Amino acid sequence: MTENKFYIYNSLSRKKEEFKPIIEGHVGMYVCGPTVYGDPHLGHARPAITFDILFRYLKYLGNKVRYVRNITDVGHLENDADSGEDKIAKKARLEELEPMEVVQYYTDRYHLFTDALNVQHPSIEPRASGHIIEQMEMIEQIDKNGFAYEVNGSVYFDVKKYNQAHNYGKLSGRKIEDMLENTRTLDGQDDKHSSIDFALWKKAKPEHIMRWKSKWSDGFPGWHLECSAMSTKYLGQQFDIHGGGLDLQFPHHECEIAQSTAANGKESVKYWMHNNMITINGQKMGKSLGNFITLEELFTGSHKLLEQAYSPMTIRFFIMQAHYRSTVDFSNEALQAAQKGMEKLVKSIEVLGKIKPADKSTVEIQTVIDATFTAINDDLNTPIAISKLFDGVKIINSLNDGKETISKQDLEVFIKFYNDVVFEILGLKKEEANSSDNTVFNNVVDLLLQLRLDAKANKDYETSDKIRNKLAELGFEIKDKKDGFEWQFKG
Amino acid sequence: MTENKFYIYNSLSRKKEEFKPIIEGHVGMYVCGPTVYGDPHLGHARPAITFDILFRYLKYLGNKVRYVRNITDVGHLENDADSGEDKIAKKARLEELEPMEVVQYYTDRYHLFTDALNVQHPSIEPRASGHIIEQMEMIEQIDKNGFAYEVNGSVYFDVKKYNQAHNYGKLSGRKIEDMLENTRTLDGQDDKHSSIDFALWKKAKPEHIMRWKSKWSDGFPGWHLECSAMSTKYLGQQFDIHGGGLDLQFPHHECEIAQSTAANGKESVKYWMHNNMITINGQKMGKSLGNFITLEELFTGSHKLLEQAYSPMTIRFFIMQAHYRSTVDFSNEALQAAQKGMEKLVKSIEVLGKIKPADKSTVEIQTVIDATFTAINDDLNTPIAISKLFDGVKIINSLNDGKETISKQDLEVFIKFYNDVVFEILGLKKEEANSSDNTVFNNVVDLLLQLRLDAKANKDYETSDKIRNKLAELGFEIKDKKDGFEWQFKG
Repeated sequence: MTENKFYIYNSLSRKKEEFKPIIEGHVGMYVCGPTVYGDPHLGHARPAITFDILFRYLKYLGNKVRYVRNITDVGHLENDADSGEDKIAKKARLEELEPMEVVQYYTDRYHLFTDALNVQHPSIEPRASGHIIEQMEMIEQIDKNGFAYEVNGSVYFDVKKYNQAHNYGKLSGRKIEDMLENTRTLDGQDDKHSSIDFALWKKAKPEHIMRWKSKWSDGFPGWHLECSAMSTKYLGQQFDIHGGGLDLQFPHHECEIAQSTAANGKESVKYWMHNNMITINGQKMGKSLGNFITLEELFTGSHKLLEQAYSPMTIRFFIMQAHYRSTVDFSNEALQAAQKGMEKLVKSIEVLGKIKPADKSTVEIQTVIDATFTAINDDLNTPIAISKLFDGVKIINSLNDGKETISKQDLEVFIKFYNDVVFEILGLKKEEANSSDNTVFNNVVDLLLQLRLDAKANKDYETSDKIRNKLAELGFEIKDKKDGFEWQFKG
Repeated sequence: MTENKFYIYNSLSRKKEEFKPIIEGHVGMYVCGPTVYGDPHLGHARPAITFDILFRYLKYLGNKVRYVRNITDVGHLENDADSGEDKIAKKARLEELEPMEVVQYYTDRYHLFTDALNVQHPSIEPRASGHIIEQMEMIEQIDKNGFAYEVNGSVYFDVKKYNQAHNYGKLSGRKIEDMLENTRTLDGQDDKHSSIDFALWKKAKPEHIMRWKSKWSDGFPGWHLECSAMSTKYLGQQFDIHGGGLDLQFPHHECEIAQSTAANGKESVKYWMHNNMITINGQKMGKSLGNFITLEELFTGSHKLLEQAYSPMTIRFFIMQAHYRSTVDFSNEALQAAQKGMEKLVKSIEVLGKIKPADKSTVEIQTVIDATFTAINDDLNTPIAISKLFDGVKIINSLNDGKETISKQDLEVFIKFYNDVVFEILGLKKEEANSSDNTVFNNVVDLLLQLRLDAKANKDYETSDKIRNKLAELGFEIKDKKDGFEWQFKG
């Protein structure tokens, strides 16, 4: 039997834990979405796909999932230490646009490319700028509980004081003493009592466009706050899963834990999950290194590091071929291998659909099925799962060669298994090189006529006649052949 | 020469006026977007397409256009008289969802179908719930200026007092005396001083989920307020164009004028534009009349009033065949005619691209070009413009038949003209499969899914699963509904 328990690695406990939702059958998950000031790139694709698979699998397991993924459209400064310019406002100034035009453009671009990657839409996609009131209320609560202080219209989180009652650094494994030693006071941060404190509210400089009135000053919320405020609003004070990239673990997620604990007196997240980073030819990816590849460049092949264009499903398959907690190294060779692998897998599923069942099975399919689900249940181990799917491809090939046989019942189970795992859980879809509509059209008509053959074989002439008549009515000419059928659309 | 002046009909002055932006070369336009609690339907398509053409044409004329179209996700009560339940909260309660899940789902659906209609994304798409602070600030300003009063935690706009200083009813042409005579006090509205006053802030009942703290009460803003607050925020206190459906002229736009004038001491909008309504077989379209057609039903043909599926470009062309200020009557005959017309036009442009130039022209193309732009410049008269394009089709045919000749220079001008007008300004695009194939395709898929329902009804789950899995594999997304199914080809 398939191992039914689903384990995920909890970054907080640093071990794999069985996943048990707080309320059975209902899962609340929050994932940090993009800061929308630039075109979506590979670094965006990985968390989008990783947590899409989680979302899909949790639903496959029968849960009702409320998946919240935010859009950061305010407050994310150029460096994480609360100084520098707002990333979106800077882009807006450079392009002479209203900041919200920048936000809209890159949000639309993010949707365009994640749609192409077959990433399902989250249940709620809240914007930080749309939740200023909720963030103010959280600051008030943190302040009321004694963990914030105001200086010159800005409000900061008092990390040292928090650390006396709680543990700042528990997620990232950092010690406050080391942080104090390693950070230095940056320009313009003299307001802070300590270099490790972080902003909850920043007073806006006169030239700052994105600003709201508050009891403290005309200003804007600190970046870390939005996720705490919006996850609480839409998922409650305690919820199941919080995900994001490993680069967000510190300081962003550490600050989120501190904020929620300081405001609500308890931690909010049961399971913390982090996807690892992408390297390119072994190097860290970065704008300054010139190896920064956008999704559009990947899909069109228009980047000097790319030997060809890679389809969205190739990118998706490539990312799934590594476990989400490992780094992925990006190279043309690896992508081309992913493309071949994916095409082979999808082709095999087509072949499987055409296998004729026999009286009995000479193959053993349950081992493949169990091993695949065991891998998925083991912290979404997609590379192992995919290798098990390829074990199954060997079986499909031997069936297709006529070397082995499969019973009707086994065949149905196997087909359902491949469809469930490859399309529903892993979220691949068929890509048609050209005239996709035509190919799909032909496949749909074939499927109908196959059903007609099945109905005839079962002596269900009512159904078989209905299909034939309906198709004739629509303008199809159907010819029965010894080994199947032939059709033509006469219009 | 082409008439270069662009005239639009200003609903406020009730006449055509030459369009002159407040700041030359820059246009600010605001259009009322959808209230996201139901699937997008024909009534949504018309303003989306009408103002898309305006947006496209203003850009074509060389303007930098900031186009703001909102998403109403809070405060729109079941009737316009400030009583009844919030439309979104009601839907959420019925479907046991968080209101923002309803908002997200129908916002995504609106984007999906307006994308299919080739409607360009606005520059900014703000959500009402994301601008509560701005709305509160506007209420304070209106109150400070003496045009609001608070009763039991709700704040109302004092229409009579406003009318003493300004003119309430100037847009819709209504007189306040008649309104007072014709309105009656509705249940639960006893708080108002007068039946014609409207809510700026409503105190929330205990069971109301969407609520924010304010100085008046825990509550939510009145529906009319969001557009005033968001247009001011993103376009300034005075901007060029405000558009929307004619059904919004009163009370919504009348209230907007009153709010902006009361808050800022001046009117905000230079040109008010309203598209007329859609009727179906001569009847008003409405849910209660059962002649309410969603865009998905149109694109798939799955509505009892539809004889076939109609492609997005057929719908777009059909809507453009009427002037935006006339009613459009929707019928299968009219749609089929639109489909033929559009195909003929697009086909002719293909033919034009293959014409070989001669030494000199025996045809006169400038008349067609001038007449087309004169029609567009005459308050976006798309039906006349399209008829002029068909005059040009006659020229194309005579060139193709070899009866006439065209010079290289004229040919280039003519090709550019057709591409500019048909694709860039009117926003048509070539559709891959021809529409008749599309209809057949949709019917074939419907037939398959009907067979699946039959199989399920007969408890033949093997067959029903097989159909679903196969279709999923081919890229279809299938949703079971209470009374049938819904499908979408995701490709």
